[in-house]
Amino acid sequence: MPDRLLAIDWGSSALRGALLDEAGRVLDQRGAARGMLTIGPGDFADVFETTFGDWMDVPGTRCLMAGMVGSKQGWLEAPYCPCPAGLDEIVRALVRVPHAARGRTREIRLVPGLTCENRGMPDVMRGEEVKVLGALEALGLDDAVLVLPGTHSKWATVAKGRIESFATVMSGEFYALLCRHSILAKSLPVDDAPFDAPAFDRGVATALDGASLMQTAFSVRTLALFERLPEAARASYLSGLVIGEELRCRPLHGARELVLVGAPVLVERFERALARRGLAVRTLGEEVAWRGLLAIDRCAAESS
Amino acid sequence: MPDRLLAIDWGSSALRGALLDEAGRVLDQRGAARGMLTIGPGDFADVFETTFGDWMDVPGTRCLMAGMVGSKQGWLEAPYCPCPAGLDEIVRALVRVPHAARGRTREIRLVPGLTCENRGMPDVMRGEEVKVLGALEALGLDDAVLVLPGTHSKWATVAKGRIESFATVMSGEFYALLCRHSILAKSLPVDDAPFDAPAFDRGVATALDGASLMQTAFSVRTLALFERLPEAARASYLSGLVIGEELRCRPLHGARELVLVGAPVLVERFERALARRGLAVRTLGEEVAWRGLLAIDRCAAESS
Repeated sequence: MPDRLLAIDWGSSALRGALLDEAGRVLDQRGAARGMLTIGPGDFADVFETTFGDWMDVPGTRCLMAGMVGSKQGWLEAPYCPCPAGLDEIVRALVRVPHAARGRTREIRLVPGLTCENRGMPDVMRGEEVKVLGALEALGLDDAVLVLPGTHSKWATVAKGRIESFATVMSGEFYALLCRHSILAKSLPVDDAPFDAPAFDRGVATALDGASLMQTAFSVRTLALFERLPEAARASYLSGLVIGEELRCRPLHGARELVLVGAPVLVERFERALARRGLAVRTLGEEVAWRGLLAIDRCAAESS
Repeated sequence: MPDRLLAIDWGSSALRGALLDEAGRVLDQRGAARGMLTIGPGDFADVFETTFGDWMDVPGTRCLMAGMVGSKQGWLEAPYCPCPAGLDEIVRALVRVPHAARGRTREIRLVPGLTCENRGMPDVMRGEEVKVLGALEALGLDDAVLVLPGTHSKWATVAKGRIESFATVMSGEFYALLCRHSILAKSLPVDDAPFDAPAFDRGVATALDGASLMQTAFSVRTLALFERLPEAARASYLSGLVIGEELRCRPLHGARELVLVGAPVLVERFERALARRGLAVRTLGEEVAWRGLLAIDRCAAESS
């Protein structure tokens, strides 16, 4: 009987899964545009079976899921685990999903999201915690500052293998709002223009020198008005303004190295912007989620 | 023959006009939801005649217009006048609109917008300059810092009666984007809730203590998630976050007094937020636009 783990990252807009063997090797991967937002209450089990049922039918296969699938609007709620949290705390907070198909009980567990308090304000993450843990495993680190750029970027501080605290920056969402719904949309090209590195750098420099995106963003319009920024360069410039502001607002607590985890197109922009701050950067792709889920699964096996 | 001025503030979304007698008294006012954005190229003269033709038919009536009507997409372009700019500079840059109706030439002139450079970035205003000049007249000031809150707030520094420089903050637009199009929309009530002063104050304090709205805005969602902010209080809290960030990002250059010009609902919020900074505040309504246009008209008469 094989010993296989189906590792799943089920977020708001996408569902991704990887089948891992006992050594943690990826045997196969699948994805579907069936994020939580596309699924009605009560339909999660069906989507799960449609996408991964054949893998789960093989005896000795268990499943560990992370992401918004464990939120109130997800399949089943896995209450947030408070920081500081590492493998042990997360394993103790795993939630079993009662589900059977074709007469057999499926072994499925949910990874809880994390919560912390920053200056009296709660913050939350769901799904990013497995990437953080995976990155620590991959790099052999116990202490690190990690950045996961995205719609809602997460900045996590890890000490002795536990996520001490983290902060959310809505930079990806602000960028999208400004591109699509603001007055700046009129100054941007209709079709995506290729990335313009000098314009991006100019945006980053402007943001680092500024105090608020609410003020610097207006320069997209005024530079356009006076024909001082070509149309094809404006989205890259705005991207630089947003990412520059994100870097400006995050204290690095003396870190000299930063770990970046994310899609290459975003990670490259952050790397470029961070170079101005004289920080060493190590980058990893989103597949570290599988490594994080595997680490949780192994820790759970040891402690059971 | 009477000596009358038709003073017009023709912005992106609204058209407002006041008929003033030779002493500057307001004889009558009219408004229409015919902002520049609702008017096709070539149709400005028709809208003007429909709205104000009968007033202009009285001999001895001339017209001065400010706002987006003088932009590239307006009736006729009145090129931006560079700062520092006071009455004299603006009068020299007035643009005559060639227009006749019922066989008679209309005496219509456009007030140019202003432009300035902040740290190598251009900034622009159109329409606010007449309110600034009107406020100076109304309060008998030659030196002041003025704030005109709105979709795009303007902060103007006046020295010796001239607008030295100004800055645009897209605070009203950011607030609207977050309310309508962001993930926070899900946490806000569908119908407008009444203003919640303590929630607003909490937002201001959070913003003054924070470094970016991209980070603080997420607390609307997390406070909602943990039921630590009632639904009816969330819009006021978000408004406090946005206005607090606007105050945080504006250096006051040692000013001890601030002049606020705008709609009462916005001005009251800014007054409330500014009280935390220990600044004296004087407030004026948007009707100071008429006073500013009158001052420009008189200065033009003197210098012709």
